Amino acid sequence: MKARVTIMLKDGVLDPQGEAIRHALAGLGHKGVAGVRQGKVIELDLDATDAEAARSEVTRMCEGLLANTVIEKYSIEIA
Amino acid sequence: MKARVTIMLKDGVLDPQGEAIRHALAGLGHKGVAGVRQGKVIELDLDATDAEAARSEVTRMCEGLLANTVIEKYSIEIA
Repeated sequence: MKARVTIMLKDGVLDPQGEAIRHALAGLGHKGVAGVRQGKVIELDLDATDAEAARSEVTRMCEGLLANTVIEKYSIEIA
Repeated sequence: MKARVTIMLKDGVLDPQGEAIRHALAGLGHKGVAGVRQGKVIELDLDATDAEAARSEVTRMCEGLLANTVIEKYSIEIA
């Protein structure tokens, strides 16, 4: 079973890396970009076969290691 | 119009960061993780209003700046 975790900075948190990307895109002529946010994606290959159990375990992974929940939000897709 | 670009290392390319995450998860007791791949996600807020034009511009951004197409693959979602 595959899981994909997407981790982004929370909305109120400044994202200088995203701003740097926006600036670089503008320098390359892509002027129509109003904002950029940058985050991480982690694809997990799980032994679990039950989707609910997998989601519950991945949630524990996010809370315990993958995301810094003070400044980051995460979403989990199970496939 | 929003676009989300997901950038992952190509399948044959070693991903030591993903392997480090797998190792750390195993150390925390998450033994049922067979593999981990780590990548980037970039959310773009675009002035464009046409989905096809937006996809075409984001593709140019990926080829020109966002992805290293020698070792990385990217996928684009327009919303």
